[in-house]
Amino acid sequence: VFDRVGILGVGLIGGSVACAARKYKLCREIVGIDQDRNNLLAAVESGVIDIALEDVRQIDGTFDLVLLATPVGSMGELLVNLKRNWSSSTVYSDSGSTKLNVIRAAKLVFGRMPANFVPGHPIAGSEQSGVAAASPHLYQNKRVILTPVAETDRKAVALVEEFWQKMGARVSIMEPAHHDDIFAATSHLPHVVAFSLVDMLGRKDEKDEILKYAAGGFKDFTRLASSDPKMWLDICLANRERIMSLIEDFRKELTLINEILDRNEADKLFAIFQSAKTARQRFLEQYELE
Amino acid sequence: VFDRVGILGVGLIGGSVACAARKYKLCREIVGIDQDRNNLLAAVESGVIDIALEDVRQIDGTFDLVLLATPVGSMGELLVNLKRNWSSSTVYSDSGSTKLNVIRAAKLVFGRMPANFVPGHPIAGSEQSGVAAASPHLYQNKRVILTPVAETDRKAVALVEEFWQKMGARVSIMEPAHHDDIFAATSHLPHVVAFSLVDMLGRKDEKDEILKYAAGGFKDFTRLASSDPKMWLDICLANRERIMSLIEDFRKELTLINEILDRNEADKLFAIFQSAKTARQRFLEQYELE
Repeated sequence: VFDRVGILGVGLIGGSVACAARKYKLCREIVGIDQDRNNLLAAVESGVIDIALEDVRQIDGTFDLVLLATPVGSMGELLVNLKRNWSSSTVYSDSGSTKLNVIRAAKLVFGRMPANFVPGHPIAGSEQSGVAAASPHLYQNKRVILTPVAETDRKAVALVEEFWQKMGARVSIMEPAHHDDIFAATSHLPHVVAFSLVDMLGRKDEKDEILKYAAGGFKDFTRLASSDPKMWLDICLANRERIMSLIEDFRKELTLINEILDRNEADKLFAIFQSAKTARQRFLEQYELE
Repeated sequence: VFDRVGILGVGLIGGSVACAARKYKLCREIVGIDQDRNNLLAAVESGVIDIALEDVRQIDGTFDLVLLATPVGSMGELLVNLKRNWSSSTVYSDSGSTKLNVIRAAKLVFGRMPANFVPGHPIAGSEQSGVAAASPHLYQNKRVILTPVAETDRKAVALVEEFWQKMGARVSIMEPAHHDDIFAATSHLPHVVAFSLVDMLGRKDEKDEILKYAAGGFKDFTRLASSDPKMWLDICLANRERIMSLIEDFRKELTLINEILDRNEADKLFAIFQSAKTARQRFLEQYELE
């Protein structure tokens, strides 16, 4: 598909794109940039990327595709540095977990949304991070959401779509604001809840015992809460209005649960638990249908 | 170890005890009772139990060990029915996830805590339920907590301890109130939080999309929330004061998070996420040491 591909941020996400692009022969050469020198060195040594560059301003029109795969808080700065040699013959995309703030940053840097910048979000990852966790299979059967705006070039969207599809992903197109609504609920709130709960229980006097006996319940929360704190900080700040509103909804839900417990209203509590179980069953059915 | 073992409630927990007792040759005969006739029939047909009885009042002094493995809310009624043929030569134990309420129920039925009733709690299970999910390996390397009281016969405790150890479990002794404190934090609160979050998001207009894109975050919550609603209703009512107090703590933690987001205090948010990640690391270290 492409000759030269540039990956800005060769962590789990960017590194896995590099591995998959290599595996599926989607380009001739993969160039990587990463602030973490050890991580970048590891990416070269393990053959995940062909060439490491020092400076984002070296990314020019010799690239066919450039993927911004850094925490969403750094996209603005990255775009400022890319602007210097920004090329209309290159297609740019990103892998940020929030989309409105990336579009906002691009508009701020360029005065308008560049037609050849396709905002995207691969729904993949794990609590692991860094190039060492990268895998060519990370995107196999995973969803990727592209959120082009009115100004976005349709050919650029088609190229990015094809790139992800060839790595095994299933691509959807979505409005950026709608994307941020959905992921505030399905991803951001659950992570904030997990971080908060683990932080709270981890500060209790009995924290060692709580960890020791963390079987089914708390253990799953600690796994979620072991995700990269910097990445999640950026996501929370980027999508904070929506997350705050959901946290407020959730606080009200917990108030309701406590009222129900206080009044010993078994039927109401059972109905909530039952409805949650039903939602899970809908999820499994939907998942299996696809 | 034993001749006849009675299992009251042949679900995931009781059924797995039956399978493990058979596998490790811990008794000659396994007798089961279950309110769900289909489940009981399946337990006989699959050879998990040898004999199915209709009525708890048939459990008499011919049994060496009787395990109460029903939801904690039904223990009182079960003890009332067992009382008729209660035998001092039999050892009784239970597998309830809360301990104070089981002890309270026993004291209510017998006027005091019977010396041959050893309250216990195996820390094992899954979101699966019923005898079909039973496995002889469920307790392998899992923890079992026994919470004897002052009146409890030490020989009975030793017998129950040996029984679990031979099924591969690691047994600890704990004060009943302390047990209920620890498990309110490590198990009950996380489950209530998962049920509440899944219920809340499952009622939103975008619920189908939220489920569709439920990758890392929400998916883990739906798994926890697919646990048996009746079992969790009983646990919540049995340990409700402690759970209510932790829910209140957690509501305050969420208020704090929202204040931090509102003020854009990146450092404070990062510190919370970082501390949660550290707690996870402590968990992994402790887990691997053992």
